[in-house]
Amino acid sequence: MHNLQGKAEELYHLIKDDPIVSPHGHCDPSWFAKDTPFANAAELLVIPDHYVFRMLYSQGIPLANLGVGEPGKAADPREVFRLFAKNWHLFLGTPSRVWVDYVLHNTLGISSTLSTETSDTIYDQIGDLLAQEDHRPRFLFDRFNIELLATTDSALDVLKDHVAIAKSDWGGRVIPTFRPDGILDGNDPEFLANLASLGEKTGQNVDSFSGYLSAIRARRAHFIANGATATDHGIEHVMTEWLSNPDEVYQRLRLGQANDGDAVRFYGHMLIEMAQMSCDDGLVMQIHAGSRRNTNRDVMTAFGRDKGADIPIGIDWVKGLDALLNRVGNDTELRILLFTLDETTYARELAPMAGHWPCLRIGPPWWFHDSPAGIARYFDQVVETAGYYNLAGFNDDTRAFLSIPARHDVWRQGVALHLSEQVSKGYFDMTDATKLAGLLATDLARKAYKLET
Amino acid sequence: MHNLQGKAEELYHLIKDDPIVSPHGHCDPSWFAKDTPFANAAELLVIPDHYVFRMLYSQGIPLANLGVGEPGKAADPREVFRLFAKNWHLFLGTPSRVWVDYVLHNTLGISSTLSTETSDTIYDQIGDLLAQEDHRPRFLFDRFNIELLATTDSALDVLKDHVAIAKSDWGGRVIPTFRPDGILDGNDPEFLANLASLGEKTGQNVDSFSGYLSAIRARRAHFIANGATATDHGIEHVMTEWLSNPDEVYQRLRLGQANDGDAVRFYGHMLIEMAQMSCDDGLVMQIHAGSRRNTNRDVMTAFGRDKGADIPIGIDWVKGLDALLNRVGNDTELRILLFTLDETTYARELAPMAGHWPCLRIGPPWWFHDSPAGIARYFDQVVETAGYYNLAGFNDDTRAFLSIPARHDVWRQGVALHLSEQVSKGYFDMTDATKLAGLLATDLARKAYKLET
Amino acid sequence: MHNLQGKAEELYHLIKDDPIVSPHGHCDPSWFAKDTPFANAAELLVIPDHYVFRMLYSQGIPLANLGVGEPGKAADPREVFRLFAKNWHLFLGTPSRVWVDYVLHNTLGISSTLSTETSDTIYDQIGDLLAQEDHRPRFLFDRFNIELLATTDSALDVLKDHVAIAKSDWGGRVIPTFRPDGILDGNDPEFLANLASLGEKTGQNVDSFSGYLSAIRARRAHFIANGATATDHGIEHVMTEWLSNPDEVYQRLRLGQANDGDAVRFYGHMLIEMAQMSCDDGLVMQIHAGSRRNTNRDVMTAFGRDKGADIPIGIDWVKGLDALLNRVGNDTELRILLFTLDETTYARELAPMAGHWPCLRIGPPWWFHDSPAGIARYFDQVVETAGYYNLAGFNDDTRAFLSIPARHDVWRQGVALHLSEQVSKGYFDMTDATKLAGLLATDLARKAYKLET
Repeated sequence: MHNLQGKAEELYHLIKDDPIVSPHGHCDPSWFAKDTPFANAAELLVIPDHYVFRMLYSQGIPLANLGVGEPGKAADPREVFRLFAKNWHLFLGTPSRVWVDYVLHNTLGISSTLSTETSDTIYDQIGDLLAQEDHRPRFLFDRFNIELLATTDSALDVLKDHVAIAKSDWGGRVIPTFRPDGILDGNDPEFLANLASLGEKTGQNVDSFSGYLSAIRARRAHFIANGATATDHGIEHVMTEWLSNPDEVYQRLRLGQANDGDAVRFYGHMLIEMAQMSCDDGLVMQIHAGSRRNTNRDVMTAFGRDKGADIPIGIDWVKGLDALLNRVGNDTELRILLFTLDETTYARELAPMAGHWPCLRIGPPWWFHDSPAGIARYFDQVVETAGYYNLAGFNDDTRAFLSIPARHDVWRQGVALHLSEQVSKGYFDMTDATKLAGLLATDLARKAYKLET
Repeated sequence: MHNLQGKAEELYHLIKDDPIVSPHGHCDPSWFAKDTPFANAAELLVIPDHYVFRMLYSQGIPLANLGVGEPGKAADPREVFRLFAKNWHLFLGTPSRVWVDYVLHNTLGISSTLSTETSDTIYDQIGDLLAQEDHRPRFLFDRFNIELLATTDSALDVLKDHVAIAKSDWGGRVIPTFRPDGILDGNDPEFLANLASLGEKTGQNVDSFSGYLSAIRARRAHFIANGATATDHGIEHVMTEWLSNPDEVYQRLRLGQANDGDAVRFYGHMLIEMAQMSCDDGLVMQIHAGSRRNTNRDVMTAFGRDKGADIPIGIDWVKGLDALLNRVGNDTELRILLFTLDETTYARELAPMAGHWPCLRIGPPWWFHDSPAGIARYFDQVVETAGYYNLAGFNDDTRAFLSIPARHDVWRQGVALHLSEQVSKGYFDMTDATKLAGLLATDLARKAYKLET
Repeated sequence: MHNLQGKAEELYHLIKDDPIVSPHGHCDPSWFAKDTPFANAAELLVIPDHYVFRMLYSQGIPLANLGVGEPGKAADPREVFRLFAKNWHLFLGTPSRVWVDYVLHNTLGISSTLSTETSDTIYDQIGDLLAQEDHRPRFLFDRFNIELLATTDSALDVLKDHVAIAKSDWGGRVIPTFRPDGILDGNDPEFLANLASLGEKTGQNVDSFSGYLSAIRARRAHFIANGATATDHGIEHVMTEWLSNPDEVYQRLRLGQANDGDAVRFYGHMLIEMAQMSCDDGLVMQIHAGSRRNTNRDVMTAFGRDKGADIPIGIDWVKGLDALLNRVGNDTELRILLFTLDETTYARELAPMAGHWPCLRIGPPWWFHDSPAGIARYFDQVVETAGYYNLAGFNDDTRAFLSIPARHDVWRQGVALHLSEQVSKGYFDMTDATKLAGLLATDLARKAYKLET
């Protein structure tokens, strides 16, 4: 045990200060374009973090009192932070507590423990820090030793923040990610408006299916020109199908004459078109699947999307990706990264698939599973069948900028623990473990997202 | 490791003698109303315990030889116990062996190990003990330090045993639980007879749907008047649906003119009605889902229900509870406790759902999973996403009265082990672990079932 | 921990040199009939092993360069071995690396580590060894201390290799296994040809359903006469159904007039017929379910079956076996061994089912799950509900003859580790653990396959 702990610590110390490679997440690029200070402790740690306010809500605390959504606009941020501090015990055993603890102690240097008694003091301490030059977004980005941060951006985004960052004298590398769901999903209420915007932004005539494809290609090129190396899809069920008549389905969708199932089948077809475009332009394709969105309709109506009511569901990756993989899956230059919320697919589907198809890599534990036990289950279930080289390293997938170092730290601790256990079980020695530690901390992410220079 | 073991033992000793809160189970209330002695070792440990005789049956031993069901009535209990003793090795590695060992050694003070050689002696020792005053049900209840025991009772039950206990000079708290499946499930062969009985018992005219609802409300009130704090549903698949015309479906069922699917959809509607009644009268709602009952039809025909052939199946909680939750799920006073036999739903569905919906709590590991490894998997998979405060503590769910202390003891050991590991991993310190130990041993159950005084 | 490790080592040393019982696998019986030397290191370790070349393929190495299939015939085996050696790091953390390491070091006595630098030397060393008398198949079989090896053979096989082995002066016990899928599956392209061959080989008129059944019985008798004790089925979904008119469906299939679903339902019926024949002739029935075969159609077309693109899928054993079990499942002489690739069914379905039905036993972790972590998950999830006596021990299921000792060794280490943990948790003492170790290493396999003498 001592031996195990010793090995884990040795490996952890080798990687803990490696640069942070963050190839997928939801930070707002304007933070780095404008470099305006964060507002206050509630805006920093509670209001934008659905991991945090969903837990408070689950114990009967109204979302409006937590500053969430339109109804929360009237809430006093100091009161929001008090509610959070008072209920800090609810987070015992959760990664949110680990991350917030790390942010408070390691990142912000606050030594007292969060509680009703300390709430106001800590709130003020954080307020003071945020007002200082050395807690502005760019400064923190550099201090965090972030080598690269990818944002996630609508396919229609003109990327002005990314352009502004590139033009600035600041050296931080913040790149966009092409997220085309809004222009592919006929069930999106904004679909037709998005098509119109797509035509306008690209100068293509999107009345025809070929014009639509050209417009998408143009948008991808714009993202590439601004540094993007990847696309991203967020879907509920995985379904792909190569249609013989995509143009006809497109016309029905475009003219509001869609049949039942048209939108879903069209999306399934377009996933394959997107993969084919990736074969051409080299963008890495990410598929995040298995979240049923907005399951609480009252909360959706009053507070909007992403309010903690997105719940995972069972997924069939084998059937779902069949059409796509049989069209492009043997392309050795293509990269498709799969993210699941259904852990039963780690060993049953994802590891065997990634251990065969040249294009596939398994993304790191995602969302609810980005946690110490989630990381342990991931390694336990994927490595024996997929090996390490079919993994995509880590990404933090967060919109909480300050939690980035905390999340990478939890991953690196998990990596060190896993590898030390493998050594203890005789799988390999510390020389190999050391190499793998570096791979898992940074190199696999660089490789998977084609970020190597 | 020593450290880990030391911490686990420290935590275990803090909670091992806490009172037993048993808010869900299947003990017979007449045991405590009449306080008649248990008959013999076979009646105590083998014949009523489907965990035990299913294992013997799986290795080719006829159920009739084990005293089970009608065909087993002729079996000599001493011979039944001999068969059990002879095959004691079959239980190596199972919680049944742990429980029976605990009962024999800790509860009954028998020092010898069960085997063919010791069978008769132990049988006689147990017989002698059971004949003594201090091994009657009430005495044992008090000696076990049971703070509360809930039974599970048909919605049509007049609760005479509970009334008798309340009127007696004995202070034990034995409360009923409202189990309405027989009056909700149109597929139950007794459904029409149950409706008639429901009308009679309540004086309501159940020919109309509104009369039927009133009758159910009256029965719930009767249970509440006799101490009930909870209801219970046992279902195969989870399906809820708010019907626009429940009265019409009710009439078809009542008149034997049901269409295909009417019974299932009506049950799905009535689950929501039950939840709404819980909003009104405060009864905690329990849903035990995912067991396919009586899969062995020959055994069912010859020996009846609950004979070890109930097998778990996969469950979709997200879809199944959608209609119910979107009707009442944001009510912060409502409590719905979910029990699953499909462990894949712990991390994927139950923890995210309980970590959002104010009404939901996750019940403890149930049935096959109420075991050391089952408890470890439960904590591993629910805590990071649901926290501890969205759990419902423990309940033993047993019809084997003597095993109650054994089952709570296994849980408490599991709690201590889990918390000590969390401390070792740095999740929290021993101060927090100590608080959580008490919560998990008793307080969360008291809270979840509204038993706090 | 020391204690735990000490116990594990003690148990391992008790069983590590036990004879190898290998009741299910895919070795070629001609190796032992003809006793010709293995060709070279690539033919031994890379080309026939889909565990190995799938991983190389997943990282972009063409199968043809690895000597696989028709297109691989031109590959120089030395170059194939070089490619393997160069990419040896890809196998870090996989059981393939553990097995190949064991073969190289323990079986072949090669001390250097595989790498680009050592590739040619090791290739030559292996070549030299294989040319020697004491590395011929029969010699290795004896040296490996194999008590019994079962092959898997088409129902139409005349078993000439098995006959030759029996007639030879060599004492090794190599028995066939009856695999009837080709004569049961109306979707098999060879089905009609197989029927014709079945008629010819047995002299039965297979134009009638009863003649078809008689022919199958005759083939089973032929296998039994040549030492078989078991049958084997490899299926995607589990589905059984007792048809009222199997003869009509058979006629439609036979005459090429099948309706949609006929082939699947007929197979579902025939599984029950096979179980009934097992009740009569005593052959143990194996069902390997849950692999979607040949999911990569380009690879299938160019390289054929079994090329690493078989991916597991979710399975419903409860529903799937319902018809079969309700027809024959209470027969205490019948043995049906279930193998799953869907680990979610271990605790949810297989353990409860095997803990009830007298005919069922759970096969060992199969294919991707035959690995240290896979074995640990298996014990963790099946033992508490099924006990040890409802397990079928171990089988290696390999076509890589040299890996047999390695695979049994990994299992035995897993057994020792599991049992030592059970002892540490207080489940039982070392006396019981010692007995269970012997059971799990050999005796349960002998019992399950009726190999006891």
